[in-house]
Parts: sequence; structure tokens; C-alpha cells
Amino acid sequence: MIERIGILGGGQLAQMLAQAAVSFGMGVVVFEREADSPASRLTPHSVVGAWDDVAALERFASLAQLVTLENEFVDAGVLARLESWGLPVFPSSHTLGLIQDKLVQKRRLQQVGLPVAPFRAVDSPAEVRAAAAAHDWPLLLKARRDGYDGRGNATLHGPDTLAAAWERLGGHAGRQLYVEAFVHFEAELALMVARARSGETRCYPVVATEQRNHICHRVLAPALIDPSLACSAAELARSAVEAVGGVGIFGVELFLTQTGILINELAPRPHNSGHYTIEACATSQFENHLRAVLGLPLGSTAMRAPAAVMVNLLGSRSGPFSAGDQPPYSAALSVPGAHLHLYGKRQLRPGRKLGHVTALGATLAEAAAIAEQAAALVDM
Amino acid sequence: MIERIGILGGGQLAQMLAQAAVSFGMGVVVFEREADSPASRLTPHSVVGAWDDVAALERFASLAQLVTLENEFVDAGVLARLESWGLPVFPSSHTLGLIQDKLVQKRRLQQVGLPVAPFRAVDSPAEVRAAAAAHDWPLLLKARRDGYDGRGNATLHGPDTLAAAWERLGGHAGRQLYVEAFVHFEAELALMVARARSGETRCYPVVATEQRNHICHRVLAPALIDPSLACSAAELARSAVEAVGGVGIFGVELFLTQTGILINELAPRPHNSGHYTIEACATSQFENHLRAVLGLPLGSTAMRAPAAVMVNLLGSRSGPFSAGDQPPYSAALSVPGAHLHLYGKRQLRPGRKLGHVTALGATLAEAAAIAEQAAALVDM
Repeated sequence: MIERIGILGGGQLAQMLAQAAVSFGMGVVVFEREADSPASRLTPHSVVGAWDDVAALERFASLAQLVTLENEFVDAGVLARLESWGLPVFPSSHTLGLIQDKLVQKRRLQQVGLPVAPFRAVDSPAEVRAAAAAHDWPLLLKARRDGYDGRGNATLHGPDTLAAAWERLGGHAGRQLYVEAFVHFEAELALMVARARSGETRCYPVVATEQRNHICHRVLAPALIDPSLACSAAELARSAVEAVGGVGIFGVELFLTQTGILINELAPRPHNSGHYTIEACATSQFENHLRAVLGLPLGSTAMRAPAAVMVNLLGSRSGPFSAGDQPPYSAALSVPGAHLHLYGKRQLRPGRKLGHVTALGATLAEAAAIAEQAAALVDM
Repeated sequence: MIERIGILGGGQLAQMLAQAAVSFGMGVVVFEREADSPASRLTPHSVVGAWDDVAALERFASLAQLVTLENEFVDAGVLARLESWGLPVFPSSHTLGLIQDKLVQKRRLQQVGLPVAPFRAVDSPAEVRAAAAAHDWPLLLKARRDGYDGRGNATLHGPDTLAAAWERLGGHAGRQLYVEAFVHFEAELALMVARARSGETRCYPVVATEQRNHICHRVLAPALIDPSLACSAAELARSAVEAVGGVGIFGVELFLTQTGILINELAPRPHNSGHYTIEACATSQFENHLRAVLGLPLGSTAMRAPAAVMVNLLGSRSGPFSAGDQPPYSAALSVPGAHLHLYGKRQLRPGRKLGHVTALGATLAEAAAIAEQAAALVDM
């Protein structure tokens, strides 16, 4: 029986995963590149090292009976090495290999007939211009790996912006890039899919995500869309997770367009758009991830209230978390119905995700008012 | 600002407190008498030592910015020592000193006019017989300190059982005992009271507790009693916590009798009868304990569903937690609506609290059916 789970990565997703593991009486061991990560404060067992530090990885492996991850930036080769040592690893190196390179991911989704925006690999600015001839401007220029929250993406409105974007994304230094046709979407949707080792899947409700400066600002659950569209979205998301042989929880980002739904991308882990499930669903995304990778029955993904809204708490400045006596979220705790989650980050940076607030309500408007009111009272 | 909270005790209450601290981005340091306690697995910082091991206590104090406790068996003198070192300690040594000796506690409650069963100190079996002359048999013979789950209590049905009970409870070896009149109650009730450093208090709903073999079997929230009785119960509980200058969360056990409500006893900490609050209330008892001791605003204690039932998972045998591949609670996870909590105890003992299940429902009957069904599927 598993008593300790290894987590690759030590940020807030690992933190909330470790928090969920507590209810199963399980401990965790955390592998992170830097010391004092949020999740490392929740266990006597953490290992600090680079992903390719084999001695550190061996130490980590010796402390874990099963391995999972909280981000897709660890190389699939690291997962393959852990698998070669006989450890169960979920999601597997095979799945991660099909996801972490976004071009490979897009190809896989297209290969199984799932709808994605037109895309192509580009090795030079000239190839971007060739893509524009086929798909027209604007185009999205993207790094194939390691992008998040808009980092690693550039919107090209015309040929004038190409040279600067190519350089900013590292194309001149050999970083692998690709382009996608710009999607004129009506809304951005997302949903979480849990897939068990048995192949059983459960979809969470389809939610609407709202971004500001390419960072998720808030999530509205459920999305106010036609039920048949929600059904299609869930079917697409489920098929996408099956197409990569996924085991665990997956965040699936979608575009709603005038002509239907496109899959934007998959995340092979708990996802910001699923944080609302902690309070709003019968089983949180973190608990269902654990159930899935542990080979346990999945839990109900039904909502416990008609509506829920999650608002991210982003850093507004740089500096230490708080110098004062009172934490900077104290006033927000007075808002009835606001559920606060802080990630224990010691340093603020503009735009850094420092926590989130979730509120439930009879309507999205009611939940949004509570969550936004609390978020506005947090000063950090 | 507090980044790490010290907890005296490392059992399941400390575990769930540490789990709640995660959402505030806070860490904990755990002081426990034995290594590998459940809560010690949730932090890089734990200290193992006897309560009176001053060097260990100093190490603990150096790692914590504020101290609280998960059980009342630590001597109030230990809390006083921590206070003398300048650490904020909640509940305070003063409060613990008024609670941990049950005779002192009863006297304090009586002194402020709160209703308790008749009681008196007894230094010899002869004094017990004298008490019986005043209050009649049956009598409850109780240890003044360190009793829990029926340990440290004996029901005396007549003079014949006195000698054996006196010896079993350690009276012959000098352990301090007292007697209480036996209360012919109609129901056992309980409620949690959170009291902040500011003096602000919030009462949770009054619940009914059902015991088997002196151990809590299940908790029904809310208790099906007359609303005016529930109001009086909350008023009495609030007054009791104020009478001991309590700061933090307090469990208040009550007897409902034909002539009204009596206070049975106070616990200066999260309490088994409040575990249902994790899923069933807007703010859990653990989060409100943290808010109270940290000087933060208290959260709403309102229920999020009409009814909730919590069933304890007690050990049925002795031995290791599980030898098999699948955890012994796997089948219970398939019961929709059952929320499982395991305490990570490595050894089973008959009657040992190993976890609990909570279910919500439109009625108590509905919630009870779910929780009992899941609990029955746990084999440990």
C-alpha cells in the first residue's frame, strides 16, 4: 500500500495536492529545483536538485512509492528514468512526451481527428511569413516548450512585429517555435478531466476562463453555454485525454468560436481553472488526481452549489510577502462566503500567482460579487 | 507576520490543523512525545520529547512564532514556560489551567453560575460512599486529569463495584479522582465555539453525539431539538468558553435532560464532534481555530447543507494498517457523497480512532445512510 507519493515540482499545485493527500493519511516527498518551495514545507522529505541530477532523482525515488508531477516542464526523459527503476509514474513518460512539446501535442490531437486551430512548425522568420500567406495575420508565434501564462507566446499582427517577437521568444538562439492561426474566439472555456488507471473517466463542469494580460484572472463555473455545447466540450476533452493515454487529472483549455469548439491545449496536472472544485465540487481536482493515480475509484465531479467563481490573487509589486504584523489578506477574511487560499510564496512579483479566492452562489453574479470583493481587499 | 505555528501534540487534530494552515500559506512545527506522529509527516520541522524536556521545548519555541495545542494533556506549566519566553500561546496557560483538571473546570463553571451535575472531590472510597449518601447511586467516578474516550471514567452502580473501580482508575496509587452524580440524559449534545483574541465569538450548530462503548460513534448536525433549546445551548457554551478566558476553538459537551441542559465538559481544542464542519460549514473548526489564535476575523459557522452526519472509523483489531495492495478504505470511496478522512495511523488497535466519514444531505436520515454505508465498507 502506498504511504508516500513523490511529486515532481513544489509550487502551489504540489501544495494543494499534498493538502489533499493528508485526507488519505498519506505523506509526500517533493522534488524541486530550489529550496523552500511551498510544497516542501508540508513534508519532512524533500529533495532539491536539477531535473537531470541523477543522484538527487535516486534519493527522491527511494523515498516515494509512486510518482506524479505538478508541472509539465520536467522532461519526459526524467519520468522514463523513474519508470525504468520500477516506480509507477502517472501521468506516464509516454503521456508527457505527447504533451510537453506543444507542436507534438497539436499533431497528436489532429491525428485522432480532434479540432485544433491550423498550426505549423517554423524554423525561420521566412517560414512564419509563409504561414501568414496561408492563414493570414494575425498569427500566434509560440515556443514549443516551457511556456506558461503568456510567456513563450507572441501575437504577430503583421510582418513588422515578427523580428522582435522571434528574438524575444528565443528563435534566434535556436529555441524551437511554431505558429498557430489566430482564433477569433467568443469565449475561452476549460474543463478538468480525471482519468483513472482503469480507463474510467469523469469530467468536471465546463467553465469560462477570463484572462488579463495573458494570465487567468477568474473562472466562472459552470460556463453559461448551451447544454449541448457543454456536452460536446466534455466529449472532446475526454477524447483528448484518451488520445495521450492520460492517467490523473488533466486541464483542457478550449476556444468557443462561431463555428464550434477548438482544443487549445492540455495540461497533464491539476490546473488553475480547476481550483474552484475544492469548495464547489463533491470531489476536488486534487483528490480525484490522487484517486486516479493511486488506482482508487474516482469521486463525483458534481457541483455542490449552482455557481462558483474563482479569482486569482496576483502580485501587484515586487518585494517580501508582508512586512507588517497583520497578513495582507486579513480584511478579505471578513467577507462572508469567500474561501481564501494562499500559496506561501515569500516573494511578490507583479503578476505572480500568490493565491486565489473562491465563492459559491445561487448565480454566477452572486458568487462573482463575493469573490471579487474579497480579492479586492487583498493587498499584495 | 506569522509564518509558522507550533502545535503541541501530533495526532489527527494536529494533522487537520496543519492541513488548514496550508490554505493560509503557513507551515507548522509539531512537538510530540513519539516520533512519526501523523502531523509530523506534514512538516520539515518536528521536535520529539517529553513535555518537561526543556531543551526540546526550547528547540520547538525557536521554530514557532505562535503556539497552540491539539490536546489538553500537556501541562499548563509547559504553556506558562512558553509564555515566559515571550511566545503568544493560545489557548493560554491560564485557560488550560482552568480546564485540564476536570474538578477545577467543574468548579469554575459552577462558580460563574453555569449548570453542571453535582460533583465533589473524593480522596478515598469512604468519601465516594459519603457522596452516594447525598446523590444516590449510580455515581460516576472520574480521574481529574488525562481521561478520554471513557478511559479514566467508571460508572458505579452500587458499593460493590467501588473497590475495583477505585483501583482501575489508580486511586489506590494516589491518582486524583472525583465523583459526579449520574445524569439520566435524554441526549448528548455538543457544539463548537470559536473565540477570537478580540473576544468575538461564533457558535457552530448544536449537534447530537452518539457514543458506543464510551467512544463517539457518530455526530448528527444539526441536533433535532427545539430551536429555543439550541439557542440556550449556544448561550451556555459561549459563557463557558468566556468563563475560562478561552481563545481558539472549543468543544463543549452537553447533556440534554428532562429539566434542561447541563454542561458536561469543555475541550480547549478542535473536537471530534466538530469534524463534520470541514465539509458541512462555511468555515471548518480548524480554520476558525487558526483565525482565532492568529487574531484574524472569524469565519461564518453556517452550514452549507441542511444536514450532515459524521461517523468515526474505529479500529476493529490490532496490527499494521494494511498489508495488501489496496488500502482498506478503497471500496468506501465508491459511495457517492461520502467524504473520507484517514489519520495516517500505522498501527490498528480495537477502538482506536483511525479516520472518519462525513456526508451531507437534505435530511439527517439521508446523510446518515451515506456515511454509515461508507463506514461499513472500511475494513480496518
